[in-house]
Amino acid sequence: MTVEFPAFTHTILAAKKAKGISFADLETILGRDEVWIASLFYGQNSASPEEAQKIAEALGLGEEAIAALTSYPSKGLGPVVPTDPLIYRFYEIMQVYGYPMKEVIHEKFGDGIMSAIDFTLDIEKVEDPKGDRVKVTMNGKFLPYKKW
Amino acid sequence: MTVEFPAFTHTILAAKKAKGISFADLETILGRDEVWIASLFYGQNSASPEEAQKIAEALGLGEEAIAALTSYPSKGLGPVVPTDPLIYRFYEIMQVYGYPMKEVIHEKFGDGIMSAIDFTLDIEKVEDPKGDRVKVTMNGKFLPYKKW
Amino acid sequence: MTVEFPAFTHTILAAKKAKGISFADLETILGRDEVWIASLFYGQNSASPEEAQKIAEALGLGEEAIAALTSYPSKGLGPVVPTDPLIYRFYEIMQVYGYPMKEVIHEKFGDGIMSAIDFTLDIEKVEDPKGDRVKVTMNGKFLPYKKW
Amino acid sequence: MTVEFPAFTHTILAAKKAKGISFADLETILGRDEVWIASLFYGQNSASPEEAQKIAEALGLGEEAIAALTSYPSKGLGPVVPTDPLIYRFYEIMQVYGYPMKEVIHEKFGDGIMSAIDFTLDIEKVEDPKGDRVKVTMNGKFLPYKKW
Amino acid sequence: MTVEFPAFTHTILAAKKAKGISFADLETILGRDEVWIASLFYGQNSASPEEAQKIAEALGLGEEAIAALTSYPSKGLGPVVPTDPLIYRFYEIMQVYGYPMKEVIHEKFGDGIMSAIDFTLDIEKVEDPKGDRVKVTMNGKFLPYKKW
Amino acid sequence: MTVEFPAFTHTILAAKKAKGISFADLETILGRDEVWIASLFYGQNSASPEEAQKIAEALGLGEEAIAALTSYPSKGLGPVVPTDPLIYRFYEIMQVYGYPMKEVIHEKFGDGIMSAIDFTLDIEKVEDPKGDRVKVTMNGKFLPYKKW
Amino acid sequence: MTVEFPAFTHTILAAKKAKGISFADLETILGRDEVWIASLFYGQNSASPEEAQKIAEALGLGEEAIAALTSYPSKGLGPVVPTDPLIYRFYEIMQVYGYPMKEVIHEKFGDGIMSAIDFTLDIEKVEDPKGDRVKVTMNGKFLPYKKW
Amino acid sequence: MTVEFPAFTHTILAAKKAKGISFADLETILGRDEVWIASLFYGQNSASPEEAQKIAEALGLGEEAIAALTSYPSKGLGPVVPTDPLIYRFYEIMQVYGYPMKEVIHEKFGDGIMSAIDFTLDIEKVEDPKGDRVKVTMNGKFLPYKKW
Amino acid sequence: MTVEFPAFTHTILAAKKAKGISFADLETILGRDEVWIASLFYGQNSASPEEAQKIAEALGLGEEAIAALTSYPSKGLGPVVPTDPLIYRFYEIMQVYGYPMKEVIHEKFGDGIMSAIDFTLDIEKVEDPKGDRVKVTMNGKFLPYKKW
Amino acid sequence: MTVEFPAFTHTILAAKKAKGISFADLETILGRDEVWIASLFYGQNSASPEEAQKIAEALGLGEEAIAALTSYPSKGLGPVVPTDPLIYRFYEIMQVYGYPMKEVIHEKFGDGIMSAIDFTLDIEKVEDPKGDRVKVTMNGKFLPYKKW
Repeated sequence: MTVEFPAFTHTILAAKKAKGISFADLETILGRDEVWIASLFYGQNSASPEEAQKIAEALGLGEEAIAALTSYPSKGLGPVVPTDPLIYRFYEIMQVYGYPMKEVIHEKFGDGIMSAIDFTLDIEKVEDPKGDRVKVTMNGKFLPYKKW
Repeated sequence: MTVEFPAFTHTILAAKKAKGISFADLETILGRDEVWIASLFYGQNSASPEEAQKIAEALGLGEEAIAALTSYPSKGLGPVVPTDPLIYRFYEIMQVYGYPMKEVIHEKFGDGIMSAIDFTLDIEKVEDPKGDRVKVTMNGKFLPYKKW
Repeated sequence: MTVEFPAFTHTILAAKKAKGISFADLETILGRDEVWIASLFYGQNSASPEEAQKIAEALGLGEEAIAALTSYPSKGLGPVVPTDPLIYRFYEIMQVYGYPMKEVIHEKFGDGIMSAIDFTLDIEKVEDPKGDRVKVTMNGKFLPYKKW
Repeated sequence: MTVEFPAFTHTILAAKKAKGISFADLETILGRDEVWIASLFYGQNSASPEEAQKIAEALGLGEEAIAALTSYPSKGLGPVVPTDPLIYRFYEIMQVYGYPMKEVIHEKFGDGIMSAIDFTLDIEKVEDPKGDRVKVTMNGKFLPYKKW
Repeated sequence: MTVEFPAFTHTILAAKKAKGISFADLETILGRDEVWIASLFYGQNSASPEEAQKIAEALGLGEEAIAALTSYPSKGLGPVVPTDPLIYRFYEIMQVYGYPMKEVIHEKFGDGIMSAIDFTLDIEKVEDPKGDRVKVTMNGKFLPYKKW
Repeated sequence: MTVEFPAFTHTILAAKKAKGISFADLETILGRDEVWIASLFYGQNSASPEEAQKIAEALGLGEEAIAALTSYPSKGLGPVVPTDPLIYRFYEIMQVYGYPMKEVIHEKFGDGIMSAIDFTLDIEKVEDPKGDRVKVTMNGKFLPYKKW
Repeated sequence: MTVEFPAFTHTILAAKKAKGISFADLETILGRDEVWIASLFYGQNSASPEEAQKIAEALGLGEEAIAALTSYPSKGLGPVVPTDPLIYRFYEIMQVYGYPMKEVIHEKFGDGIMSAIDFTLDIEKVEDPKGDRVKVTMNGKFLPYKKW
Repeated sequence: MTVEFPAFTHTILAAKKAKGISFADLETILGRDEVWIASLFYGQNSASPEEAQKIAEALGLGEEAIAALTSYPSKGLGPVVPTDPLIYRFYEIMQVYGYPMKEVIHEKFGDGIMSAIDFTLDIEKVEDPKGDRVKVTMNGKFLPYKKW
Repeated sequence: MTVEFPAFTHTILAAKKAKGISFADLETILGRDEVWIASLFYGQNSASPEEAQKIAEALGLGEEAIAALTSYPSKGLGPVVPTDPLIYRFYEIMQVYGYPMKEVIHEKFGDGIMSAIDFTLDIEKVEDPKGDRVKVTMNGKFLPYKKW
Repeated sequence: MTVEFPAFTHTILAAKKAKGISFADLETILGRDEVWIASLFYGQNSASPEEAQKIAEALGLGEEAIAALTSYPSKGLGPVVPTDPLIYRFYEIMQVYGYPMKEVIHEKFGDGIMSAIDFTLDIEKVEDPKGDRVKVTMNGKFLPYKKW
């Protein structure tokens, strides 16, 4: 299934590739995490005008890019069940470990959820002689259910 | 939507509640992470006979519990799109950050995926005066696509 | 489609009916809003032991009710698209006014969402000679997207 | 998932952005609520020719805009289950609080529904030192089931 | 697909069959249309206590029947797309004639809908030498979209 | 969800609007019901060459229109569950009154269905001081199940 | 996916098996086609009291069987897309040859459909040295679209 | 729902219409059944170069047509559940008569299926004073399940 | 999602476990492949009376087991998209390698399919110091599309 | 359903056809399996720059092809349930033999899965006088569930 991305996503990824700039480079330029920057490129977060300006300069893009990077479009990218194997594994983790996580979070915090908005996500490469490992760290504010 | 769990899940969670034992206690008893133990209770992982024995003893359960904890039933718990707000947030993270993670992982590792099998998941409570935070650490082996 | 509710829901609604107690009465007894109390009955929120005790007493229910009212089961009740006309109208409102609300909320607050957890919901009957009206007031904390 | 909007929606939102006019400004110009106006822009409601004329003038648009604003196209915008986090929260509210609202509305009014047609929706920003809040007020006529 | 009906539906239909009473007979006894009565039996409408009493008497049923007939359960019966050929034809009519009806209703009434709540539905047998015909008359209040 | 109509539908509806001709006018010109004519415009029925000719003349359209009006394209217009409120109400009627209608039709006619092919559909505006009403009359041949 | 059949289906198929009676035998006893009889057993058609009597006698069943065989339950058996390979092939034929059949039927008959109600279906075994063949003959009345 | 066909399908059907050639004519020209030829036009079967040549000549088409007619594209045309009434009736037949056919085929042949590949399908018009009938004959090789 | 298996499957798997007999043992006893035997246990294939007898004896089961093993129930086990990680990988292989396989099979064989009925499937453990490997060999008859 | 492939897929398949080069030829040129090469063409795997260069040369394609062949786009091609008969058979195998394979793999290897990433897939034509056979060999690393 060809997943449809915002038109802007193709433009900015092509510019990044042409410039030979990595997300890690952009992390240095912008002072923001590479995953957050990648989420900007997919229209899932929005930059301040200053941030958008810096990105546009780094990638040689103009006003249209700044407009796109500072807007708040409809979020959520993939098909209902992702078919891309890399992304599906995160769906599988939710299917397999979702209720176990619910049990442990409730035991530690009580009734409530982990925010996906007041939230950060970090990816690290952990070198390992038996095969490198991907370390994903999610950090979200616990929101207790309000009673009224 | 009432999600259907394996019949055993209800039994073992009730026994754990009746005994007043937390997953953290079980972590100490078993020497295994509390999330992994919770996943055992939901039929998503399988214990060795010795591990099953220790859990059964701690919770006052018999042979049937050991049989259930050491078997490999069909995995994957929830509805296609979860309705429980705590679990839905992990689905939303996959919808919103899935492709950005794919970009960053490919940039760091090349073509391949993070394994969800050679994989660990840890949950920590990070105290914070502005509101405690949930920290979820996923650690999976990177599997490069084999060429042939 | 017969929607499946937690077994406890049927018990507690039957007890409430038998006692002839309204949600408004329970609001007075408990000092909590009637919608929140109704959400408790459907397993969508959880009470403190003291709150559960008061409800159990009012309805003549025992320990099992207290256990159910203080637990945190899987949330989310209906089919993917509700078929009940009263509930469907709220789905329709989301379909018809969802993006318009997104525009107005973003204009007033910037990028972020209205929390459905740090959230209250109130229902009032507004008498009107041309036909009484239902007034639903939702009040949720605005959560700005965190940058990192 | 890139949600498809009527072609006109993109045109009118771009014109509004270019003119630097907010929905609040349009509320003043038109004497109609900003949410209703936003719903017009998404083709979910229809204006009178006079109303369409005023909007077209304010945004510097011509006959085509008037034609679009006064027509009655197919309504309902999003995917079956919304993926945009802001809009999803309204879906979650329906999933979690739908049946509780049904209980309370039936208790207050008897068998029937809240109209989504003879209906208004208002959004307010409630300032709060612990974090501003979004207040959504829905007001719909109660329609009792007719017997025949 | 075996469609699941409320348990009560089976009981009351069996009682009606055992008594050899038709919906037309019940129409005479109750002074209400047979389709409305059939909708009561499927939990889609609710009777007053007096009406419930009359039906229970006619069918030799007790208090439980009266309780069921006067309650307001979750409505909407079938699968998303009905498989029963008789019911599917009404789905097909909506698929084939839905937009044409929308055009004609908008032309006659302006923007709005036909209410399915302030609504009656009547079925008649029209004898015809070339084959009898089913005449279904729907009559619903037109609800214009409210502006605010 | 922007519903996709046959390209021709847009052309002919635009021509009709430009000419200021109503479906009621076309009913007079053609001697066929306005709903049937609207269904022609949506590619759900097919005209004879003479009928197509008359319509093309009335709307100032050429050979291409005649070809489209006389062809038999794939039928069925909307999404599986319609999101347009006007059309959804007909889906809701099928969900709520489908099985009750099945009961009454079977009681009156025996095992069989109402044809949606040997079928007519008429819409009338019934003026009423308490609010005008939409009257929809469906008339289909009863088809008994053939035994063999 | 275990497909759910009407409870009666299991009873009558078990009785048939116990008696060692084939559908071909029942065809002789009843003077009706074996496919029609099999469809009776699955609640997809209904027998006259005399026919039901004959079947009940042949299979040693009582009043309950007669009641089931003469009733008109909800029809349509399988999941939306069948998983049973034998039945899936008929779904595949509809997917692959549906539009080609539509072309040929329209060319031969004009606009309309083949009735699935005024319809018979016959299955024959055609012996063939290269492998026996299944011959399915469907015969349905052509129903032209009525104009009005 | 506008069903999407391969681009080639529109071209070849238009050419056939322009030439005034029927599928029956093509049957004579090609010495192949008209349904098979229609399936070619929808990209569901593939012709030999000689067959493609004959069709291209008959319809005045060139190399591109020959390339399309001899290729093996992705098969299966319609939506999951067809909305076109003519095609839906074949889906309904599978829903209603699928399991009855399975019973009869298993009784006649044992465990296995009717092939949809080693398969022919023929459509005949059977004239009848009470209304002409469509006769569809399917003939597929029986494939017994291989044991190993 | 708890996948529902035929009731018999649970019985026979429990008997096999209690007897401590492996599928490899059954392969020796029956002279049939272990995968085929496992498919029997899940109601996906059917045994001859002699084969059923041997299995029943080996597992200490009676007439009911023989009846189940020799019957032809509805086939196809899992949810539409499997959630079990082991089974999902085969779904993923079909998603990722399906069209590439189609290309290669068409190039080698022409238009047609690999039979899933005249078909065998074998699983081997290939020991490997870098990690043992699962080798799955599928062998199905090529069926060319019949022309007619 | 016309399955959408990456735009590049059409270009490269057309170039391959125009050059008259088979996947078997490319296997020789590249020293990689033909299925792997076909999967490259569908954007399901990625080549090294040297491999991409060789393919581009063989097919007379330029820089754009090299860029496409070395990128890692979103994977997973078909609709949720494939409609193409050749590909559907692999879906059917997963539906019918999925759980039996799970049983046998667990018995041979313990709890874990066959990798679809550290994985090869080979297709062979096995000539047979009773009809040639397709032999598909899958070979994936067994990944045991990690405990932590």
